[in-house]
Amino acid sequence: MPNTFEIICLGNELLIGKILNSNAQWLAKNVTSLGGTVQRITVVGDDIEEIAAVLLEALARKSAFILTTGGLGPTFDDKTLDAVALALEKPVELNETAFLMVKDKYRHYEQTTHKTIELTPARVKMAHLPKDAVPLPNPVGTAPGVLSECASSKIINLPGVPSEMRAIFEESVVPLIRRFVGSRHMYEKSLEVTEIIESALAPLIDLVMREHPTVYVKSHPKAAEPVPLIELHLSTLAPSQEEAKERVEAAATEVTRLIEECGGVIKPFDA
Amino acid sequence: MPNTFEIICLGNELLIGKILNSNAQWLAKNVTSLGGTVQRITVVGDDIEEIAAVLLEALARKSAFILTTGGLGPTFDDKTLDAVALALEKPVELNETAFLMVKDKYRHYEQTTHKTIELTPARVKMAHLPKDAVPLPNPVGTAPGVLSECASSKIINLPGVPSEMRAIFEESVVPLIRRFVGSRHMYEKSLEVTEIIESALAPLIDLVMREHPTVYVKSHPKAAEPVPLIELHLSTLAPSQEEAKERVEAAATEVTRLIEECGGVIKPFDA
Repeated sequence: MPNTFEIICLGNELLIGKILNSNAQWLAKNVTSLGGTVQRITVVGDDIEEIAAVLLEALARKSAFILTTGGLGPTFDDKTLDAVALALEKPVELNETAFLMVKDKYRHYEQTTHKTIELTPARVKMAHLPKDAVPLPNPVGTAPGVLSECASSKIINLPGVPSEMRAIFEESVVPLIRRFVGSRHMYEKSLEVTEIIESALAPLIDLVMREHPTVYVKSHPKAAEPVPLIELHLSTLAPSQEEAKERVEAAATEVTRLIEECGGVIKPFDA
Repeated sequence: MPNTFEIICLGNELLIGKILNSNAQWLAKNVTSLGGTVQRITVVGDDIEEIAAVLLEALARKSAFILTTGGLGPTFDDKTLDAVALALEKPVELNETAFLMVKDKYRHYEQTTHKTIELTPARVKMAHLPKDAVPLPNPVGTAPGVLSECASSKIINLPGVPSEMRAIFEESVVPLIRRFVGSRHMYEKSLEVTEIIESALAPLIDLVMREHPTVYVKSHPKAAEPVPLIELHLSTLAPSQEEAKERVEAAATEVTRLIEECGGVIKPFDA
């Protein structure tokens, strides 16, 4: 599977339901729109062995990109890099480039806050990376992202703070994904279907997907049956945007015809 | 690990980032507040082998409860029960109790909509369960939830539609969890910390957690350093609500004192 991505989100706050995992959705959406296929999303807590185990599972599945979020900061429960080191059987050591990045940040903070900020061990910790790893600049925060390679997999560790995660992804990860995936374009379209219930839609969707095998069609009931409100989502990946659009529109036209024949009503979907 | 829960969410729409996984958060929050410990959350797509693989991994970890969401409906990509059957090496067969539930629902829909609703194969599919499984009534939709047991693990399949998932959980799953977990109470408290940055908080948190080993303290930066706005979250599980509260409040008092000594400012957190 040359084109699969995995997303691993770290943090007890996710396991106790304290926060909604918007990082996973954002990454999944962005990887997909770049033409990558997310195969699995996993959430585990702030535990070195547990994180290392999940990383090894993803490596065993030969995922091309393993993107993690969380656990890069200065506190005791930021354990991601120790876990990467454990999984890759490498030592953690001070990375000079990362150390310069962190020092620069604190110098900048000192200038903006007019306070002295000491480089405590907790702060220097953010520059300790697994051996051979490469730091990725953090344009909006302190802890750099981290890239490690293992066989044909890239492990990329991003911070859990959404603004930092997104900034590093956009600046450093998007170019890597583009180079890897090449030119693949996604096109998607949603239709809102009323006056027909999901179980009656099922055979129509089957039919359309058989005739348009490159288009993925999925129904999302917006309420329980028999309330007839269903979102129908059509998507495809193709070598060009035009081809992707053409495929989806052809399938959309056909499914619309079939649904209307069965008494259903279709309109463009307002998200 | 007698008390661990896993949540497995099924659906390609989650892997392409089309929807936010609010089901996982809701389940994690509710399991936690009942005294259960969620160890892992996994998202995979609508693929029988993939779903069966995740179920087998969770069974191998001897999770007490494996809660799944999604894939119980009538469409071609609702594959959860086939995957459970594959993982447990059981056949899928028409379950008479589930069939009555589904028939009752359609009879009711016919009465409310004054339309004839045929019991098509797609609809009857919702009453095909793995052998020996028990259907759990769906108070607000059609597809029943499903309970299967394997060694000391319970696999519970819930629909992906949030209202249905929640209704089945509250009616049928909460009593099972209560019986299993016994009387454990969670207490949590958040403090908002300003005028101190996260890397300076780290050693103070370490200290408080060493002195209050039953209380879990976690800092959540609300913005990148050096913007000094951090949520500090304290939580514990105890045999009684009073004891849980007492533990958390003692740790909160101590961490407040330490932070104020370092020039930080604390106020109750407004979520």
